Amino acid sequence: MNEYLKHDEWKIVEEGFHSEKTRASESIFSLGNGMMGQRANFEETYSGETLQGTYVAGIYYPDKTRVGWWKNGYPEYFAKVLNSAFWIGINITVDGEVLDLATCSVRDFRRELNMKKGLLLRQFIATLPNGVELKVSAKRFLSIVSPEIGAIQYSITSLNRDVKVEMNSYIDGDVINEDSNYNEKFWDEVQKESNPFEGFLQMKTKKLDFQVGWRMFCSLKSGNDNIQTDSVETTEDEKYFGTIVSFSLAKGVEASLHKYVAVVSNMNHASTALNSASKAILETAVAKGFDQLLAEHIVAWAKKWEHGDIIIEGDVAAQQAIRFNIFQLHQTYSGEDDRLNIGPKGFTGEKYGGCTYWDTEAYCIPFYMVTAGNEVARKLLLYRYKQLDKAIENAAKLGFTNGAALYPMVTMNGEECHNEWEITFEEIHRNGAIAYAIYNYARYTGDNTYINDYGLEVLLGIARFWAQRVSFSESRQQYVMLGVTGPNEYENNANNNWYTSYIARWCMQYTMVQVARVKDELPEKYSSFVTRTHLNEGLEFTLWSDICNRIFLPEDKKKGVFLQQEGYLDKEQILVKDLTSSQRPLNQKWSWDRILRSCFIKQADVLQGIYFFEDDFDMDTIKRNFEFYEARTVHESSLSPCVHSILAAKIGDIDQAYNMYLRTARLDLDDYNREVKEGLHITSMAGTWLSIVEGFGGMRVKKDMLSFNPLIPNTWNAYSFKICFRDRVILIRVEKDKVTITIEEGNSLDILIAGKKHHLKNSPLVVKL
Amino acid sequence: MNEYLKHDEWKIVEEGFHSEKTRASESIFSLGNGMMGQRANFEETYSGETLQGTYVAGIYYPDKTRVGWWKNGYPEYFAKVLNSAFWIGINITVDGEVLDLATCSVRDFRRELNMKKGLLLRQFIATLPNGVELKVSAKRFLSIVSPEIGAIQYSITSLNRDVKVEMNSYIDGDVINEDSNYNEKFWDEVQKESNPFEGFLQMKTKKLDFQVGWRMFCSLKSGNDNIQTDSVETTEDEKYFGTIVSFSLAKGVEASLHKYVAVVSNMNHASTALNSASKAILETAVAKGFDQLLAEHIVAWAKKWEHGDIIIEGDVAAQQAIRFNIFQLHQTYSGEDDRLNIGPKGFTGEKYGGCTYWDTEAYCIPFYMVTAGNEVARKLLLYRYKQLDKAIENAAKLGFTNGAALYPMVTMNGEECHNEWEITFEEIHRNGAIAYAIYNYARYTGDNTYINDYGLEVLLGIARFWAQRVSFSESRQQYVMLGVTGPNEYENNANNNWYTSYIARWCMQYTMVQVARVKDELPEKYSSFVTRTHLNEGLEFTLWSDICNRIFLPEDKKKGVFLQQEGYLDKEQILVKDLTSSQRPLNQKWSWDRILRSCFIKQADVLQGIYFFEDDFDMDTIKRNFEFYEARTVHESSLSPCVHSILAAKIGDIDQAYNMYLRTARLDLDDYNREVKEGLHITSMAGTWLSIVEGFGGMRVKKDMLSFNPLIPNTWNAYSFKICFRDRVILIRVEKDKVTITIEEGNSLDILIAGKKHHLKNSPLVVKL
Repeated sequence: MNEYLKHDEWKIVEEGFHSEKTRASESIFSLGNGMMGQRANFEETYSGETLQGTYVAGIYYPDKTRVGWWKNGYPEYFAKVLNSAFWIGINITVDGEVLDLATCSVRDFRRELNMKKGLLLRQFIATLPNGVELKVSAKRFLSIVSPEIGAIQYSITSLNRDVKVEMNSYIDGDVINEDSNYNEKFWDEVQKESNPFEGFLQMKTKKLDFQVGWRMFCSLKSGNDNIQTDSVETTEDEKYFGTIVSFSLAKGVEASLHKYVAVVSNMNHASTALNSASKAILETAVAKGFDQLLAEHIVAWAKKWEHGDIIIEGDVAAQQAIRFNIFQLHQTYSGEDDRLNIGPKGFTGEKYGGCTYWDTEAYCIPFYMVTAGNEVARKLLLYRYKQLDKAIENAAKLGFTNGAALYPMVTMNGEECHNEWEITFEEIHRNGAIAYAIYNYARYTGDNTYINDYGLEVLLGIARFWAQRVSFSESRQQYVMLGVTGPNEYENNANNNWYTSYIARWCMQYTMVQVARVKDELPEKYSSFVTRTHLNEGLEFTLWSDICNRIFLPEDKKKGVFLQQEGYLDKEQILVKDLTSSQRPLNQKWSWDRILRSCFIKQADVLQGIYFFEDDFDMDTIKRNFEFYEARTVHESSLSPCVHSILAAKIGDIDQAYNMYLRTARLDLDDYNREVKEGLHITSMAGTWLSIVEGFGGMRVKKDMLSFNPLIPNTWNAYSFKICFRDRVILIRVEKDKVTITIEEGNSLDILIAGKKHHLKNSPLVVKL
Repeated sequence: MNEYLKHDEWKIVEEGFHSEKTRASESIFSLGNGMMGQRANFEETYSGETLQGTYVAGIYYPDKTRVGWWKNGYPEYFAKVLNSAFWIGINITVDGEVLDLATCSVRDFRRELNMKKGLLLRQFIATLPNGVELKVSAKRFLSIVSPEIGAIQYSITSLNRDVKVEMNSYIDGDVINEDSNYNEKFWDEVQKESNPFEGFLQMKTKKLDFQVGWRMFCSLKSGNDNIQTDSVETTEDEKYFGTIVSFSLAKGVEASLHKYVAVVSNMNHASTALNSASKAILETAVAKGFDQLLAEHIVAWAKKWEHGDIIIEGDVAAQQAIRFNIFQLHQTYSGEDDRLNIGPKGFTGEKYGGCTYWDTEAYCIPFYMVTAGNEVARKLLLYRYKQLDKAIENAAKLGFTNGAALYPMVTMNGEECHNEWEITFEEIHRNGAIAYAIYNYARYTGDNTYINDYGLEVLLGIARFWAQRVSFSESRQQYVMLGVTGPNEYENNANNNWYTSYIARWCMQYTMVQVARVKDELPEKYSSFVTRTHLNEGLEFTLWSDICNRIFLPEDKKKGVFLQQEGYLDKEQILVKDLTSSQRPLNQKWSWDRILRSCFIKQADVLQGIYFFEDDFDMDTIKRNFEFYEARTVHESSLSPCVHSILAAKIGDIDQAYNMYLRTARLDLDDYNREVKEGLHITSMAGTWLSIVEGFGGMRVKKDMLSFNPLIPNTWNAYSFKICFRDRVILIRVEKDKVTITIEEGNSLDILIAGKKHHLKNSPLVVKL
């Protein structure tokens, strides 16, 4: 557990320098603006433990796969987001001594991530080995208004004597990914120019030829005055340039370097135009200056908060946590580019390669849809639509035909990257989540145009996959689904995983319904769809219907529970409460086979299905399954507790719901799993948000209406959240005894509260709980 | 398919130089003497494709494990037999031109592996780019009389002009393993000395400090006369020394270099004594001279053949093949050192790391036991006994207690090396084979002393493992064995694999029987055994008995077959005959998940159990299971066809048996799988031998008697084999209409032929078939 961070409603604060936590802090204080992001590395030299990480959205490298034993079908490479040029660097030498917090004595250290403003602040007083007392104050942000711009204000003051200062402001492209499979460097220099206080570096990635340009401009002032410099030298090396400024600094006088950097890539500009584009963009930014850039940036953040904040009254730690999660999600993905997606660590680390997982559909889309609006969610859906061809190729590699699509477990450009057979080939439920997200989007937004124009083809490809992936068991006279891994990755290669088979059936059913609707409503679209996809309704739908009627869904009638997979009850039924703490977490204490043989569950599996399809089940069934599986779930995935929290709320168990919520909300801030140094759990942050909105708030869309079923944790006085719903902004405030719902923007509408219909007009609706 | 090798009863012959087959030939013509071995690399420079491989038995390196995704419990390293100093090197330069078959035109090339004599011959005439026609003749052997000695006679004659020759005879220790995980070199030099025509190199391996010394002595003659040299220079480099001799050679005169090398290691000598030991050993060898060393070697080979030959009359290809298999098995393991074992590729390649697999117990022990005698087989059993502590440690790492032992899947020193969870942790049937080999040895030899003194502890550790590895299913009220991989590795993580559960039960039962016998016959041994192992018969045997009574063994009563695993019949039951040739082999054409989901079987699984325990089943049951599973088996393991061949013979289907036999017998010679370049399938060669002796010959031990049930393939006129059985050498000759059994050494005994008892005395017994 971290205990070095202060509780504060709007800020993450580290007071006093916790050098042993540097890598963890670098993750927690990360900045991002959807287009780029970076760990909270220090600008100046730091010889202590650090993971320098600077990432540009969409720029990746297909790193040659590394496995122990090759299995046929494995992908040749694992795409990973590239660590890219370290552009924040400002090295300071004072009277010949390098400022390095690892070698100085440090006092009054304060680091602050201001979430309201999207601003990283750091200040400290360092006593250098040569006795100079240096006060440093640094501000940094990545503009969300001009997302190709980052800016730093770095100020120093010598507190005890006049000094000679040397400042080196540089951009260093000679970086490596910590997770490089073969210890290769992935960047080559294309061009470089450097002049005093400015310069440009363009590099391209190996293999895929992504090109990125970094342009820097600096100014050095004291107050409003330029500083008299002793010398200004430019310095260059391979993939590196900088400007070294020497000057005298009188005791007590503050010198401030403003460093502006434009980061442009050939995702958005021609490779040959990166130099000129960066120039234009940077000139505009420099002309505005640091303060105006920052002011615009803060205004933009205010808008994001206006639509998507959650306020918790009476619990500062919870308030801080939920804002941290919302803030990091917005830093990671802004919804402006349908070629981008949300890596499990966002821009905060390298683990999982920064690639796209099913987390996006299962957890993130609801968050962005509700807090940032339809268009953002639609971009995420389009991302998969644009990768449909690759998903069909991926399925074809595994022997599927006729346009069957298998979306990859891990991907950057639509091609599969993962290389564990039990995941890559078998954790196929991801395909279901991708279809579910389409349904979820249409249900929430009431907008069928995505399905009509794009989604139907995705649904068809997915349904075709399922129809081929099941096989007919002669002995059982039912369709079975063999060799799958469910969301609970503590089972591998299971037969008839209930969740997978259930969502597979649903995919086929929903696709048939949507095809029928389009056929009915838009006959021309239907006919061009059939032409494009060679759909043979007669043959295909007949088979699908037969599969839907006769698919094997394991359950235990006596216990009244669905079985995670066939044979689940053959396992020794010990419970999580019977485990000693020395055995936890299982994934560190038990060998893998023992975990697999046990009944213990990593994350919601049957319960994921009940969460997705809750209207299919009566409350008793939900309760029985929840109680059965919660007792066996070790929650060793960050994605696990939120679903349990939502279901606990669903069955009215607010204590359990709150308990589960606590396990996700401060996961990173409190570093429960002692791994935050590897990066933040970005996608699971969306799960935390879901725990409040869908869990405590009980928000659903039912019968085409917004529906709430609010509960409130005992320790909270009140909480409120805003949602964007069909051109409206709606505020929901839940207190101990009542819920108040207000339309802040948009027209009146019918809503359900605790199952009862109300008409919500311009004045707040108050309903007793 | 290879077609470049001539059929010959005693020799493998390549006529004409097949440069495209060089790596394959290097495997096939390999030499070994149990203590060391080498691929059939050329002595002289070869710039074409080659895999230089020289191995010293027992000298390995723990190479750091490489995996894509680490699972808890994986071993830190994979032990691999080390490529070691290339000591055969003799580079030839003629008139300034290097002799290199890749750059010369070559005629009259002939390479011959004389299996009767254990001798590798090579001769050819090369026209060098400078026009010199050089005749070369090379002989090489690794002595099986002095197994630390290798000798080469390398003769050259210029056919068309007087020439200047430079010969460099060297030892080069600067080698690398082709399969090095991180491209590291594994040897460091310890000491080196070189003088004209001789030298010594001592190296040690990284990490484990194995030390090996190589001492060379050369003599250069023409007929019996020394050659007048122009210069003799010694040359040294890191881990390298050589002698370069320059001399004039008149047209038509033959110059012969004799190169003797002693290879000594600290497995058998003190590290500090390697220099002196190699000197003594080499001096003795040189004093004998090449011809006498070779003569002794041939006599020793004659003895091996006298006891273990199989003669096939009327089928030269079959005769050559079975001798090749017997020859290579004897080259790989001589049974003199219980620290050594049999790697799947022997000394012929690097794949599988040269480690020990369950192949030894399942296939190789019967071969050595029957052809080389009890002592050799006992050495292989002792190998596992000596690794019992490690097997207990291995089980403890996986959470097992109370002295439960899990022998590793792959090992060098008893520690597990393999790193695929579905194999490492789950392919646990290997434990059963290790117990079965103990039983098999006692049954064949009639000798219980191994069990009394050593085997009982091994059996107990294994039985204890099984008793913990099953779990009790409350819902089924039976013991189940979850998460296993059977011999058929085309199923992973299956539940209730019939073979594994069957052999597990047998292990417990057999252990209880043997404990009872020792308790009865040798009460003192029993009591010290109990003290050592803390056996609690009351508790443990009661549990074991309950498990044996209530273990779940899946079967389909309607079809009358045992089920490879629970749910096997849920798979789509297509048959091998329904596969198109474009789909074969599955492991190259299908993705791994598709293979796993299919009903197709890599190698005998249920049938392995029926083979091991055939007396438990009536003939109809054996037939039904054979027919059911053979139709589903793709035999994509070299270990597969032999078991099917033996069972086909058992049920009287000689055509099927022969058909299966053909798939193993010439596997390497004809390179069915186009992979012989990676090395020979040494352990599956024992399976080929079994196909004849246990298959066609029907040899068993029943009721403590030798038993035969001979059949003969249609294309053969007769076949005969010799076996060592309880201090006897017995010759069995099978003709179309009769079998003749002769005791060549030892006393009379009762035997069974086709189930009928006969008393076999000093005169041959002839029985009509």
